Amino acid sequence: MIKSVSIIGAGNVAHNLARMFNSAGVMIDSIYSREMRNASTLAALYNANPVDQVQEINDSSDLLLFAVRDDVLAKVASILAGSTQLMAHTSGSVDMDVFGDIIRPAVFYPLQTFSKEKKYDGPPFPVCIEAKEQNDLAKLSALGASIVGADNVYEISSPQRKTLHVAAVFACNFTNYFYGVAENILKDRNMSFDILKPLIVETVGKIDSRGPAATQTGPAARGDHKIINNHLEYLSSNTDYQRLYKLVTDLIISNT
Amino acid sequence: MIKSVSIIGAGNVAHNLARMFNSAGVMIDSIYSREMRNASTLAALYNANPVDQVQEINDSSDLLLFAVRDDVLAKVASILAGSTQLMAHTSGSVDMDVFGDIIRPAVFYPLQTFSKEKKYDGPPFPVCIEAKEQNDLAKLSALGASIVGADNVYEISSPQRKTLHVAAVFACNFTNYFYGVAENILKDRNMSFDILKPLIVETVGKIDSRGPAATQTGPAARGDHKIINNHLEYLSSNTDYQRLYKLVTDLIISNT
Repeated sequence: MIKSVSIIGAGNVAHNLARMFNSAGVMIDSIYSREMRNASTLAALYNANPVDQVQEINDSSDLLLFAVRDDVLAKVASILAGSTQLMAHTSGSVDMDVFGDIIRPAVFYPLQTFSKEKKYDGPPFPVCIEAKEQNDLAKLSALGASIVGADNVYEISSPQRKTLHVAAVFACNFTNYFYGVAENILKDRNMSFDILKPLIVETVGKIDSRGPAATQTGPAARGDHKIINNHLEYLSSNTDYQRLYKLVTDLIISNT
Repeated sequence: MIKSVSIIGAGNVAHNLARMFNSAGVMIDSIYSREMRNASTLAALYNANPVDQVQEINDSSDLLLFAVRDDVLAKVASILAGSTQLMAHTSGSVDMDVFGDIIRPAVFYPLQTFSKEKKYDGPPFPVCIEAKEQNDLAKLSALGASIVGADNVYEISSPQRKTLHVAAVFACNFTNYFYGVAENILKDRNMSFDILKPLIVETVGKIDSRGPAATQTGPAARGDHKIINNHLEYLSSNTDYQRLYKLVTDLIISNT
């Protein structure tokens, strides 16, 4: 059983997981950040030891959890490569083998978006786990269950995690960009984005009950070329938005 | 004050507005559908008269509401062009002047997505109104307020409605298509779309509190070309999705 964790990183993921682990009775031993100030801010909340050198992390913790940027993960992990403790990263897009030759590599990936500023208080989110050792998998599974419930812990391999990440880019990052496009289109004519929010919320509600394919509506789904051309003309002053409109519309038409 | 309505159309919008009008104490006089069966089904709920000829609609109702497909609106409306009653259509994408030379043209556009099968039970949605006569605008405003509250009634001109519609295509139709893309990507590897739903819900929740531009995350927002190339390679078996990924990513990068 994982009774203590040290966290390498003090960003959005580290903040939110530390809080949830603490609520579940797991001790936070030490927190690393490149900036001592950031390590201290987070460590102070749980009476943990803040450090600004990776090698000073308490490597006798039951779990060393890496919540750092993808592009520094390999380098930071290599500093602790001699440890025999369980080491898990929290990234959606990095393979477990980023840890190289260590004894007990693992992944503990919370499939949710967090911010330091706002304590996550939504419904339970999926935790995707992976480990080289079966024993460690069981431990991470129990740790995940303690924060999101057993139903939300998924054993997901590195290749599956990649699939999940590509899908999430479409379903979350790209949709968010489209909300921004809508906001800009409205702003240009002095209208508020707020007016669209009930429709956005209902659109998302529908995928939950009936799935996205069944609920596709709009000019493209109807093949309404008159409206489509009308909209393309409307967007002629912004060729980026026009290209985007055209491509997505063409794809919807060819798939319905 | 609008005390009675006849509805031309018996689809998703007609079903939901009829129910809301009825709840607000407005009488439903008659319902037209090309198919008598559809007119009867809806009319029976409110003790209204079903008709399958437009000219048989009760044209002494305080409001003749057109809830038919955009492409037949002009033709259907022309049949009642001699009436002196208030006539409003419910379309997001058709100009008020579709009514031609009639005396009291108007628009009563509910900015929400409805289905016949599922009674709408979400929060109040915006109702966008427009009318040639100031008197009629006041009447439609009161009617809108009776179903969604005065705060949700917006006076929106035809050109503004067009802007709104273009924005809604991006924020709702296109985002829904992206949910479908994500679902397909996961299905290809035997994974369920359900695993993404908490993240989708949180992404939408964030635009409400902080706005889309401030909450843009993901490989494109970070300019993480290693992950981006990785994803493009992953998508190489589906050139449609690959093109889409590339275009949206390029736009996010050039806008952040």
